[in-house]
Amino acid sequence: MAVSTPRPSLPSSAARGLHLGLDIGGTKTQAVIVNARLATLAEASAPTRPGPEGVLATIDEVTGLLGANLTRFASIGVGIPGLVDFRTGRVRQAVNVGLRDLDLAAALAARTTCPVRVDNDVKATALGAAYALPGAGGDLVYLNVGTGIALAAVVDGRLLRGHDNAAGEIGHLAVDPGGDLCPCGQRGCLETLAAGWSVSQRLAQAGLDLASLADDPAPAAVSERRRLLRGLSLAASLAALSFDPATILFGGGVITTAVGLVEKVAAHLAEQEAGSSFLAHLGLSRRVVQAPAGLPIAAIGAAALGFAESVG
Amino acid sequence: MAVSTPRPSLPSSAARGLHLGLDIGGTKTQAVIVNARLATLAEASAPTRPGPEGVLATIDEVTGLLGANLTRFASIGVGIPGLVDFRTGRVRQAVNVGLRDLDLAAALAARTTCPVRVDNDVKATALGAAYALPGAGGDLVYLNVGTGIALAAVVDGRLLRGHDNAAGEIGHLAVDPGGDLCPCGQRGCLETLAAGWSVSQRLAQAGLDLASLADDPAPAAVSERRRLLRGLSLAASLAALSFDPATILFGGGVITTAVGLVEKVAAHLAEQEAGSSFLAHLGLSRRVVQAPAGLPIAAIGAAALGFAESVG
Repeated sequence: MAVSTPRPSLPSSAARGLHLGLDIGGTKTQAVIVNARLATLAEASAPTRPGPEGVLATIDEVTGLLGANLTRFASIGVGIPGLVDFRTGRVRQAVNVGLRDLDLAAALAARTTCPVRVDNDVKATALGAAYALPGAGGDLVYLNVGTGIALAAVVDGRLLRGHDNAAGEIGHLAVDPGGDLCPCGQRGCLETLAAGWSVSQRLAQAGLDLASLADDPAPAAVSERRRLLRGLSLAASLAALSFDPATILFGGGVITTAVGLVEKVAAHLAEQEAGSSFLAHLGLSRRVVQAPAGLPIAAIGAAALGFAESVG
Repeated sequence: MAVSTPRPSLPSSAARGLHLGLDIGGTKTQAVIVNARLATLAEASAPTRPGPEGVLATIDEVTGLLGANLTRFASIGVGIPGLVDFRTGRVRQAVNVGLRDLDLAAALAARTTCPVRVDNDVKATALGAAYALPGAGGDLVYLNVGTGIALAAVVDGRLLRGHDNAAGEIGHLAVDPGGDLCPCGQRGCLETLAAGWSVSQRLAQAGLDLASLADDPAPAAVSERRRLLRGLSLAASLAALSFDPATILFGGGVITTAVGLVEKVAAHLAEQEAGSSFLAHLGLSRRVVQAPAGLPIAAIGAAALGFAESVG
């Protein structure tokens, strides 16, 4: 359990105009208190306890660390990795935190009177980054490379959700007709090149380590790195060609584990730009960034889900 | 020169709350008068005369056919195929109508007092379709397959433009690492599979005809059709995975010339869905439609550029 500064013990009167954001991850849960401008006033984190009761107890714990309780906020927003019906706040499935068909919004709403929103953590992170990342200014594509690959686009401060909240599920675009068969039934999906599930399978077979993959000189690592860089460059290219964002933010388990990977992606893109006037004009290598480690963007975005999206 | 019904001769007083939309194509220029709800009150068309003076004369002619002149409108919007700076209304290049670096908005604004907007015709068509296509309800992706391939997405009635108005320029996504070299410097771009410039090159070499390609039983035609369907299916897939629109509208020169092609694309997608639960869930085959021939959506969208986008 860790508490970062600033860690004010909020008087109940001061907390009334404030918003709670919770990022429930497979390992830890991060909480922030933000004001109406999404400036972070306090943050805290605690290890996530799995299962419905564990998750609710974790929320209580981390909120307690902030010197507050759920009744003190103007809104509460939660980001969680998995399938979430953002309209109702019901978590259909969140394997990493041991949830299945839990109406998390209702469980929290029963303990407070403020609005509660729950959404997928990729959506929350994109929203948080669009507001909190220096220079993003409300427009950004967040590319999450974890077990799967998905992006979330924020335009003018609002998440693009699409007709069925499926906008950004790019992992199964078939980008290589001669590529590996994907469990989805297609061949050469983006995820067969660069998603955690496929990369970790191949790394395990070759005795390689994702953490050191970005710089490992072994031939098998060079080959796997090439494949991964191709997949991530294509994902960045797709993000740029579809949405034309000024900033493409990489994040997710593969990105945080493989230290130095995003720099390698930028270098790979710069190499491609040297051989293509079109790509040079597109300037992808300059748009690609990695989320700064110290900024709790997923929790800030969760807080924004609670109020900014609906009023934006 | 053709005039369609309804063709009212507008009294000047009645026209004051009305908006003019002009779709300047390589062959013909279509004009519509719409009200503030974008209902079409009158439409007319005339052959496009090329060059700066030709285009302005064509605009006068087609406006005259509507029984109006430029001074009578609350706003004027123009869609034109080429590179347009939509902020200023300057046409940087429009090869098909013989324009290069013409400040078309200024040329029109000099002859009227109302706001004038000029934009690329793909953007205008998407906007028009989102408003005028039955059931679209302000959300749609328009996939233009002409000389090049580009899409335009409309979300909640507004065009997604991106950071540098380049959102939707998907033609150079490299979807086939073993594919043909593209003039852009990459290999296997979407345009090498399905854009007019590459398809027409290969058709000419094989002695095939685009107009009959959708049903031609000759082996060379079958092979070219397979490639084209793969490219168009990928473009539809990309549109769905990025934006998740309820409707994916196909249009452009390749689509209108190759009669029956969109039905073949839908059938191809349905076949793929039979082999992939992911694709079946995505349901692309049900989202793909072709622009109805009788509806002047590009001109309606041009009119919408003139006022709806800025007030929407």
